[in-house]
Amino acid sequence: MGELRQSLASKRWVIIATERAKRPADIVPRASDAGAHLPEYDPTCPFCPGNEEADLEVARFPESGPWQVRIVRNRYPALDYKLPVERTFDGVHRKINAVGYHEVLVESPRHNTSLALESPESVALMLIAFQRRGKEIAADPRIEHVLYFKNHGSFAGSSLPHPHGQLMGLPVVPAEIRERAEQARHYYDDTGTCVFCTMLRAELNEQVRIVIESEHYAAFIPFAAFSPFHLWIMPKRHNSSFLEATEEELADLARVLRRVLRKLYYGLHDPAYNFIIRSAPLHDPSREYMHWYLTIVPRVSQAAGFELASDMFINSTLPEESAAFLRDGEEEPRAA
Amino acid sequence: MGELRQSLASKRWVIIATERAKRPADIVPRASDAGAHLPEYDPTCPFCPGNEEADLEVARFPESGPWQVRIVRNRYPALDYKLPVERTFDGVHRKINAVGYHEVLVESPRHNTSLALESPESVALMLIAFQRRGKEIAADPRIEHVLYFKNHGSFAGSSLPHPHGQLMGLPVVPAEIRERAEQARHYYDDTGTCVFCTMLRAELNEQVRIVIESEHYAAFIPFAAFSPFHLWIMPKRHNSSFLEATEEELADLARVLRRVLRKLYYGLHDPAYNFIIRSAPLHDPSREYMHWYLTIVPRVSQAAGFELASDMFINSTLPEESAAFLRDGEEEPRAA
Repeated sequence: MGELRQSLASKRWVIIATERAKRPADIVPRASDAGAHLPEYDPTCPFCPGNEEADLEVARFPESGPWQVRIVRNRYPALDYKLPVERTFDGVHRKINAVGYHEVLVESPRHNTSLALESPESVALMLIAFQRRGKEIAADPRIEHVLYFKNHGSFAGSSLPHPHGQLMGLPVVPAEIRERAEQARHYYDDTGTCVFCTMLRAELNEQVRIVIESEHYAAFIPFAAFSPFHLWIMPKRHNSSFLEATEEELADLARVLRRVLRKLYYGLHDPAYNFIIRSAPLHDPSREYMHWYLTIVPRVSQAAGFELASDMFINSTLPEESAAFLRDGEEEPRAA
Repeated sequence: MGELRQSLASKRWVIIATERAKRPADIVPRASDAGAHLPEYDPTCPFCPGNEEADLEVARFPESGPWQVRIVRNRYPALDYKLPVERTFDGVHRKINAVGYHEVLVESPRHNTSLALESPESVALMLIAFQRRGKEIAADPRIEHVLYFKNHGSFAGSSLPHPHGQLMGLPVVPAEIRERAEQARHYYDDTGTCVFCTMLRAELNEQVRIVIESEHYAAFIPFAAFSPFHLWIMPKRHNSSFLEATEEELADLARVLRRVLRKLYYGLHDPAYNFIIRSAPLHDPSREYMHWYLTIVPRVSQAAGFELASDMFINSTLPEESAAFLRDGEEEPRAA
């Protein structure tokens, strides 16, 4: 029979259903529909060079010459950066007007590429652009939390195939993020250490769930991974904020992230995935007990009644086996 | 511009994106693939009469004669009811062996029906069966929490089209449920009232988000609904546990639930949906501040990077407009 495992950080339980167990090689994530079968340029794509909507541009890298990475405001934003914050609460209905930032990071001028196929320098440039723009948004006193994420493939929620990530600046700390910070504070109060540092140390000692280790990062499948290839890339240096990662650290992260994405691309046939950079809320006194990291979630299955009812997940593989599969997996195309 | 709304109960925020706003009639949930186009009997279906796997049967209603509702153990359970509970925690890795119940409630002998098309008595029988079996599972001291839910249509996670719900008995209280109970306790400590009673009273006063009101229940779209037709059916009587609903209350709930499902069936073209009965953890001292209810989530969109990163949602309709759409919506087939 399987087991229930609890995340030390979030206290969430997952059912590891080894009775129905699948070998990692038998797991078939939903394929991405972005990528190499598309044309390099699409005349209808708003992110392709030549079609840029100049009024939406926020930043470009490099600043002169042809851009490699570009940040633009969402054409249909869910949040508006031009408003003052207005909060109302009548005892039952609490609301805030939709103040904030909702932006798109175009990762490449090429319509049909993918982070996995780009150079380490290109991946690093995306991370640098996320961080630079994140710092600007974080300087706005109306903003409480910044989200950095990417949807790869329509099954992961992407509506345009041109490779892009997103930044959102929120006027609130989401309840979920606040709860995680609370859990981390409790752990710090009880033990005097950062719960993420504790988890990372255990992973490095045990090695069984490590996929890649570099100078500054460890990429691993967490002990209580909620899905088969749910993966964390965590900085070894204790640091609550992605915005404080050094240039050297980001260059190292880019190499690790690219290797992980190539393992997914070649080992799992370019699955749809989400990646998220989890960084501490901007104004929380959480420097000691929060720890930023990047998480990648290849899309294997969808949430259904069980997940909605419990906020738990059923993972039909052993995290140790998934990690071994990726650790040993190919990072280059197979020779013909 | 839109607004952020916070649920008084869960403290979760949702972005109501009225800038991108859609009229409720323009929302197209994913269609269910169950139902009337299928044969009434499928020789390969394990839930059809004649194909019953007798070794898995737990209960049948009525007990003699042809069954109308049947409860069976899952053929591939994620949890095993025959094990003693074994907990281990080495300071980092917390686990429990997969003890528990994982059962299927077959709603009808007919392969191609749907709750929306059944009589109020059939819907009531399903609720009665959920409650009777829930009481039995709750009596097992190894069990901390019982989940009751249904996936309608494969887009909602159903793997077999024969109409069925599920019961799961867990040896833990999911972290999410524990957090909701904590929030409700805080509210009770601060105000002396149940947060759900407060919300319900406000809904009944305002009326704008009410879809159906009956003697014992109100069906409404919550103020901070996370998706367009996310709906709660809440008992007016304060009561933390579904297991304590009276027979009269369940009969009334069946009528309200059926009317809601018929509004979805005829007004939204039989969408895929999940429904969940949220009842308090079994051994929590939460009688004063928890309140059971049934929630229905028609599947309109899938979670992507934003939802994973924030646990927030973007709802592109106004809950008040969605409620009006359903309130005025048809409950019978349109005359030809």
